[in-house]
Amino acid sequence: MSAQTQPSQPVLTWYSPKEPPLRLAGFAWFGTDRIYRRLPVQTPAPLPASVDGLANSTAGGQIQFQTDASMLAVRVKLRGKAGMDHMPSTGQCGVDCYLGEPGAMRYRSTTRMDLSKDGYEHTLCNDPGSGLRQVTLNMPLYQGVEEIEVGVNSGAQVLPPADYAMPGRVVVYGTSITQGGCAARPGMAYTNILSRKLNVEFINLGFSGSGKGEPEVANVIAQIRDPILYLLDYEANAGLDGIKATLARLIEILRTSHPATPIVVISRVLPSVDRFQESARETRRQAVEFQKGVVDARRKAGDRHISFVNGGHLMGEDFEECTVDGAHPTDLGFYRMAEALEPVVRRNLFGRKVRRSSQ
Amino acid sequence: MSAQTQPSQPVLTWYSPKEPPLRLAGFAWFGTDRIYRRLPVQTPAPLPASVDGLANSTAGGQIQFQTDASMLAVRVKLRGKAGMDHMPSTGQCGVDCYLGEPGAMRYRSTTRMDLSKDGYEHTLCNDPGSGLRQVTLNMPLYQGVEEIEVGVNSGAQVLPPADYAMPGRVVVYGTSITQGGCAARPGMAYTNILSRKLNVEFINLGFSGSGKGEPEVANVIAQIRDPILYLLDYEANAGLDGIKATLARLIEILRTSHPATPIVVISRVLPSVDRFQESARETRRQAVEFQKGVVDARRKAGDRHISFVNGGHLMGEDFEECTVDGAHPTDLGFYRMAEALEPVVRRNLFGRKVRRSSQ
Repeated sequence: MSAQTQPSQPVLTWYSPKEPPLRLAGFAWFGTDRIYRRLPVQTPAPLPASVDGLANSTAGGQIQFQTDASMLAVRVKLRGKAGMDHMPSTGQCGVDCYLGEPGAMRYRSTTRMDLSKDGYEHTLCNDPGSGLRQVTLNMPLYQGVEEIEVGVNSGAQVLPPADYAMPGRVVVYGTSITQGGCAARPGMAYTNILSRKLNVEFINLGFSGSGKGEPEVANVIAQIRDPILYLLDYEANAGLDGIKATLARLIEILRTSHPATPIVVISRVLPSVDRFQESARETRRQAVEFQKGVVDARRKAGDRHISFVNGGHLMGEDFEECTVDGAHPTDLGFYRMAEALEPVVRRNLFGRKVRRSSQ
Repeated sequence: MSAQTQPSQPVLTWYSPKEPPLRLAGFAWFGTDRIYRRLPVQTPAPLPASVDGLANSTAGGQIQFQTDASMLAVRVKLRGKAGMDHMPSTGQCGVDCYLGEPGAMRYRSTTRMDLSKDGYEHTLCNDPGSGLRQVTLNMPLYQGVEEIEVGVNSGAQVLPPADYAMPGRVVVYGTSITQGGCAARPGMAYTNILSRKLNVEFINLGFSGSGKGEPEVANVIAQIRDPILYLLDYEANAGLDGIKATLARLIEILRTSHPATPIVVISRVLPSVDRFQESARETRRQAVEFQKGVVDARRKAGDRHISFVNGGHLMGEDFEECTVDGAHPTDLGFYRMAEALEPVVRRNLFGRKVRRSSQ
């Protein structure tokens, strides 16, 4: 914690999410590695280079606390600059801010940045007289973060956030779509929308172009402690052949460590080409059938904690309006994905708990 | 029209939207000035400099035709490079492509571009065997276009597009939000969504940060021939004081030339700060009341062709999820705006026509 005076600004006190009272979510290995990284620094087997690199993108990272500060600010040192052509810097490199009660938080603001720089300092809000509020800051989706600090007007209380609705983590494995490409701001990645609606920690393991289901990646995912649900959403990168080659083994690897954690296999959301080419629709039909078949086979063999969701339905009837480029959802697509997945996740997390407590 | 060979590509034939059979929409002065500009080169009185500059952004520009080409491409020379931090280059500088029947067109693809360049050539689709299709290409929202050409595989038919559902133009005057900030791709600006759903030409006169209702701008807008509806959506730039200073006169100027063209005054969509600050809500209430008052006064004075829409309802109950930065809609926000405005526009355009024909 350090103090800094800015001209014509209130004095801010700065907090690091590396220490309480702030809570850092979304980084399963932060306790050992102390960096904002989605996979461990050391792994038993080398990871694919692209996965290893993309693990530094902070997709799904969240900073949570409560405060009576009227003014909130953030300063961020990135690992690089913005530069995507189909996703704004606000989504790629920005931080956005939600305020309110867990499960009912409301979006407040997003950082803006100079595209020629690899960092920024930005005031997120100045709402005098607003009292004690829960805060969630969503971290950049497609860039690494070397340092991040949260500023509040000096004298404000900063307290630990409210507890999650349940302990443990939802682990989501997938592609660029999982990683949040191409949300306009971090809070609109579907894993962040679900985390916000359900007040549960999500670990985003979406790796742009690289969600291929390799056993060495699966072995690392299986190390994550206290998984309460796995969502496997990687068809868009693996393709039909890749899904055929990896899905059964990926599930088997997770099952070895976590025999009863619910697993939901989600097939690909629809690219716009599916509206225009029968060959694309046919490949999709086969991929859906195959994934459903793997799930059905496991259920027949006694695994009662696995299910399948046809991702082709997640973005609705006019699905092609939901992407920026025919493939990557916009905020419209992510909103619809989260709306459609929310009851599935809720049932898997809370449905059984409710039943158990009512027995 | 010229031909060009690309390595490992079919030979393409290139067409300019400046000539039939292609139809160019959205530029009311193209017939006289022959450039892609939203306001005339010569005006009776000088325009505000920012409006004059922004008139070169091609928001709302559309290229329409029908073709049996399997392959469609576009090449574009921009007036400058991409560089916005809260809007991707696909929305700022890109072109997107819709295919299908008028009123039911489906999004197919978007151009991608190298951010270091001020132009691009991009294949929009290659769908063999798809037959004769209507095509709409939406032009860049926040950049000027010096040249644009459409390529089809050589030998393909290129024909004029189907007629509009009705002649004349819907003229939309407003702000950055009207201009399409911050849609992920051009087709998601709300004026383009409405144009697509209704199969009617829209003239987008949104001027980022500069929708201030000046009489000299109003005089130019009043020159547009065959207006079938005016949407006035500029509170977000003018503010309460600006609306008070300009709205009645702006309407009066339009009425002088077009006494019976329907006018719909739309108050501002909600910024996220409205959720958090009572002072913001109070200013909005006053602006709504004032705009409604101007409309009511005109109706009482005998103008039966004017109405008011409270923009605060357009993005729904969770409106704050709909923006990238608290102010500018994402595709989620624009989709909701268009959904809410569609019946209003339809009623103003077709409602009376239907009634007339059933008399």
